[in-house]
Amino acid sequence: MSIYGENLKLSIFGQSHSEAIGMTLEGIPAGESLDYEKLNAFMARRMPGQSEYTTSRREADTPELICGVVDGVFCGTPVTAIIKNTDVKRSDYTEYKNIPRPGTADYTAEVKFGGHQDYSGGGNFSGRMTAPLCVAGGICIQLLEKLGVVVKAGIVSIGGVRGTDAEMMAEIAKRRDEGDSVGGVIECTVSGLPAGIGGALFDGMESRISSIVFGIPAVKGIEFGAGFASANMCGSMNNDAFYFDGGEIKTKTNNCGGLLGGITNGMPLIFRAAIKPTPSIAKRQESVDLRSGENVTLEINGRHDPCIVPRAVPCIEAAAAIAVYDAYLGRKKEL
Amino acid sequence: MSIYGENLKLSIFGQSHSEAIGMTLEGIPAGESLDYEKLNAFMARRMPGQSEYTTSRREADTPELICGVVDGVFCGTPVTAIIKNTDVKRSDYTEYKNIPRPGTADYTAEVKFGGHQDYSGGGNFSGRMTAPLCVAGGICIQLLEKLGVVVKAGIVSIGGVRGTDAEMMAEIAKRRDEGDSVGGVIECTVSGLPAGIGGALFDGMESRISSIVFGIPAVKGIEFGAGFASANMCGSMNNDAFYFDGGEIKTKTNNCGGLLGGITNGMPLIFRAAIKPTPSIAKRQESVDLRSGENVTLEINGRHDPCIVPRAVPCIEAAAAIAVYDAYLGRKKEL
Amino acid sequence: MSIYGENLKLSIFGQSHSEAIGMTLEGIPAGESLDYEKLNAFMARRMPGQSEYTTSRREADTPELICGVVDGVFCGTPVTAIIKNTDVKRSDYTEYKNIPRPGTADYTAEVKFGGHQDYSGGGNFSGRMTAPLCVAGGICIQLLEKLGVVVKAGIVSIGGVRGTDAEMMAEIAKRRDEGDSVGGVIECTVSGLPAGIGGALFDGMESRISSIVFGIPAVKGIEFGAGFASANMCGSMNNDAFYFDGGEIKTKTNNCGGLLGGITNGMPLIFRAAIKPTPSIAKRQESVDLRSGENVTLEINGRHDPCIVPRAVPCIEAAAAIAVYDAYLGRKKEL
Amino acid sequence: MSIYGENLKLSIFGQSHSEAIGMTLEGIPAGESLDYEKLNAFMARRMPGQSEYTTSRREADTPELICGVVDGVFCGTPVTAIIKNTDVKRSDYTEYKNIPRPGTADYTAEVKFGGHQDYSGGGNFSGRMTAPLCVAGGICIQLLEKLGVVVKAGIVSIGGVRGTDAEMMAEIAKRRDEGDSVGGVIECTVSGLPAGIGGALFDGMESRISSIVFGIPAVKGIEFGAGFASANMCGSMNNDAFYFDGGEIKTKTNNCGGLLGGITNGMPLIFRAAIKPTPSIAKRQESVDLRSGENVTLEINGRHDPCIVPRAVPCIEAAAAIAVYDAYLGRKKEL
Repeated sequence: MSIYGENLKLSIFGQSHSEAIGMTLEGIPAGESLDYEKLNAFMARRMPGQSEYTTSRREADTPELICGVVDGVFCGTPVTAIIKNTDVKRSDYTEYKNIPRPGTADYTAEVKFGGHQDYSGGGNFSGRMTAPLCVAGGICIQLLEKLGVVVKAGIVSIGGVRGTDAEMMAEIAKRRDEGDSVGGVIECTVSGLPAGIGGALFDGMESRISSIVFGIPAVKGIEFGAGFASANMCGSMNNDAFYFDGGEIKTKTNNCGGLLGGITNGMPLIFRAAIKPTPSIAKRQESVDLRSGENVTLEINGRHDPCIVPRAVPCIEAAAAIAVYDAYLGRKKEL
Repeated sequence: MSIYGENLKLSIFGQSHSEAIGMTLEGIPAGESLDYEKLNAFMARRMPGQSEYTTSRREADTPELICGVVDGVFCGTPVTAIIKNTDVKRSDYTEYKNIPRPGTADYTAEVKFGGHQDYSGGGNFSGRMTAPLCVAGGICIQLLEKLGVVVKAGIVSIGGVRGTDAEMMAEIAKRRDEGDSVGGVIECTVSGLPAGIGGALFDGMESRISSIVFGIPAVKGIEFGAGFASANMCGSMNNDAFYFDGGEIKTKTNNCGGLLGGITNGMPLIFRAAIKPTPSIAKRQESVDLRSGENVTLEINGRHDPCIVPRAVPCIEAAAAIAVYDAYLGRKKEL
Repeated sequence: MSIYGENLKLSIFGQSHSEAIGMTLEGIPAGESLDYEKLNAFMARRMPGQSEYTTSRREADTPELICGVVDGVFCGTPVTAIIKNTDVKRSDYTEYKNIPRPGTADYTAEVKFGGHQDYSGGGNFSGRMTAPLCVAGGICIQLLEKLGVVVKAGIVSIGGVRGTDAEMMAEIAKRRDEGDSVGGVIECTVSGLPAGIGGALFDGMESRISSIVFGIPAVKGIEFGAGFASANMCGSMNNDAFYFDGGEIKTKTNNCGGLLGGITNGMPLIFRAAIKPTPSIAKRQESVDLRSGENVTLEINGRHDPCIVPRAVPCIEAAAAIAVYDAYLGRKKEL
Repeated sequence: MSIYGENLKLSIFGQSHSEAIGMTLEGIPAGESLDYEKLNAFMARRMPGQSEYTTSRREADTPELICGVVDGVFCGTPVTAIIKNTDVKRSDYTEYKNIPRPGTADYTAEVKFGGHQDYSGGGNFSGRMTAPLCVAGGICIQLLEKLGVVVKAGIVSIGGVRGTDAEMMAEIAKRRDEGDSVGGVIECTVSGLPAGIGGALFDGMESRISSIVFGIPAVKGIEFGAGFASANMCGSMNNDAFYFDGGEIKTKTNNCGGLLGGITNGMPLIFRAAIKPTPSIAKRQESVDLRSGENVTLEINGRHDPCIVPRAVPCIEAAAAIAVYDAYLGRKKEL
């Protein structure tokens, strides 16, 4: 189901080319205030059309909050925001219903929905569905900030290039000029979290965060703290030694990514997500024609990001903030 | 909450040193049969005390199915299995309530439960909680097999050593002799799955699988298909070309791990999980004394696996099988 | 939470005087078609302003389906409908924040939301929130009809008057002229249901139906089959004798309301709901002033139905249809 | 699904004649203590075999708490209790698989489970399944008492006889001697609840309470406050006038049963449940033979309560306590 959360309930709806997309977020305590400008500024970070490296589809993506907020204050009922799909070209995509684009959901949507999917623009598999995720996340980021919790993500590497922004942007430009695309790795840090949030087993922060982060199309891997590197370590290296820093308990290293037994330990919560390269590329590709049953080649036209990693950064922050704020609310029941 | 699933509902309960641990699994269609011997054989794969590389704690871990099955046939009501904790030494662990073991949940459980946690044996953060997971998984594996779906996991590397079993076991032995421990990577393949299972956004198979796999203590990362490697690729390399093989649609590569848009595409579903080294090691470690507020050193005695990766293999299979069978049941509603 | 359902997920959002109200319904199988005219005709049945017996607030209440439907066919993703609140007079209600109207949620909302509630128009406690319920229900009614299942409700009594429509309407007119209001009882029948839908314990149809029917403001009681009357019977009278009618199993009476053990038995599912009189009446009433801490009297002006029972009839049908279709989808998993 | 609750999660499992029945309750804050004797005393109230008016099946029904409690204190992890089924006579019930007993789930279970149900003793449709409900409820009652909340139910009428205990017991004796059974009405009051607990729409206390109360086999109706009587009233009679009593806000009447807009208003929460007569009676009844397709008559032997109303009283208290404590925990998130 397209619903996430235990104490917060997030429902995301819409398709790339439906009249509107949006989200409903329930569970925000009444009386919290919303800074619209801050929210719009956050939304702007994932907006397309910002640079030469992103799709030229241009939409303001300003969320319209149709309920749940009165005079800038959450009133305790579900918050619903909608974003109109204004720059829609339905005809762009008719071909891909029959000749699925490799790396996309064209084929699997055809099977799952028996041919009735909204194939236009990728339907609700589109990266556009991260806009309502960012609305919810932008709200949670504000609520967390008031609690002293800061969620911040950044790019670690693009196409294997770890380096300065200029080098990573050059990698994107190079692949774009080749009619290709490129992926990357994003790291997210949640700092200021108190110890004690999360739980054992499926209730752990890793389960909660991963299940929403993988809701972002293109994410193919996630690791917490040292992650896959910890699998290569011995315990004496990987274990994070506790010590008192003033009256506070800290760890000398943070290989666990701030999580022990699925619960925050007071150190920064850190995870990395692997973003695959945009599947829609200009280069000719091999596919199948579902009508004729023949192998064919396919050339994709249209507006596509050569690299969605920069735009995925706020999406990762949004996902993390929603998971963390949901768990934070759950913590209140225990105290 | 310690409940997983949408169409199947799995609830896991117990602590390492409570009278018993167990699980309730609801949603298995009435009339399916259960092969007890097969289930016990599956349970045996995660059993401790099997080799020199695992803890010497010895328990039969034979699940007692107290309801939901009549004469070997599921009767349509919740199935509950309990496993008695027979080889319990409560006194082993009293020290760690005050001096938390690095890398374990000792400290975070203390904070979360306000000192009321069952600290003995790691409480419900113990790896022992994977026994009921394996009961549920062992059942789902049987049900999937009847549908032609096979779940199979294996060790990719131990402590960075990718190689033959002998080499990997030598790495474990070496670390054990040093009083240390070591982690590893496990790969799991689910083959025989039809296309069309899963969904967009949080409903995707990656979300569903990751949230249960991270429920296994010690998992610190997960990646699907090429995973983190895909972040370093360009789209033309990473995209899996479709082709007709006889009448069937296949892909020439499987970088997507059998999943497009969160939905199975008919190719094998493949993921890898990073397992951290066992935190409980013989080597002296630095920690804190929660009573005195002083930094101390700690030596851990008792029975601990120098490497839990071999025993985690069936746990990963179990988690995958539960997630996949849950999604398979959900698919029935759509048709 | 404002989310209902297990296989269908219904989320209702909005406040009486927010920009819009609406609903998201997830789980409708792709490929089902939607008859918009039929849906609008259904919505018209609960519309205000239809007769002298209902509020004079006039809104078209035409739901705008912003996603989930393509060319009249459900595409398998969540369906969201919004209804604009056009005829809003925010100033009408400011007084009641401080002097709560007896029988309404004014006081309890003030406590729950700490004064931050959207008090205008009753916020999301307003009877207006049944409009999105009717959108979801109107859709489910259509889907059930294709399966041969018919949901039909009618008025049993108004203010204790059981009789012809004319007599019941006269009772409403009488109370309205007194500046008062009146309640009533509605009976709903779901016919054409196959046996085998529902489940034991909390999974029973009574649990599923009651939890959504009580979501309709003003419902204060529900009974299935003979209901409260069965409490006065002896078993030999109350038990419904089975017999074969042609090849079909039927019961001679239907005191159980078509439900045995929470599961449909193939006979019509029947329940009745008690609707309390509209709390907002013209007569002067006693209340309290939350600011001064003094007892006061209160006169309510504005547009109010002297009896909402006629308009509640489609709401009851809607609630029943949603519960039944949700359970019907669940049944598909078992087969 | 057999899972109830939002902040508490209650899972009930077992069949009348399985090895054991039981429940898992998750969400109790760590550090709360459990009074075993009080729990056992509560369980004793629903125990069979206490008087001449109840079944002669005799089982101690002492719950064994296998996890979640350490030295009488909840440790924060799921609590599982099992009750062994010791006095089981599997052979008693074989006949009813083919000739369903009127008024029971025999026939609907046969359809739902395709003949694979555990028909013995009524499977998990048995009234015996209320024993684990009472374990959960008995725990919640204790936790509520510490908060000053008291849950108390009593019999209003038996077979239409409203009067002294002696008169009601005489009605039971009379029906028993006729080889018949009789139903009744139970009223439950939850006092000491603060205002502000519950929510709008499906989140209302009526929805939450009704969905668990209907989980008790034999309940066929529920009404809150004046309930069905309020449907016969006019608003000026039904509305409960607010007034200040000292500094506290109270209502002069309590027709709303302590609930306005689904939220507690600080007055006692009151509801009544209709309990149908026990369907298993000694009198010969009409039924069908599922094998031969013929109408037959049926005589039921065995141990059956002529009236389960007395034993249902603690079950109603249990259900109410679970719903209320769940909502109370949810309230903590809002503050």
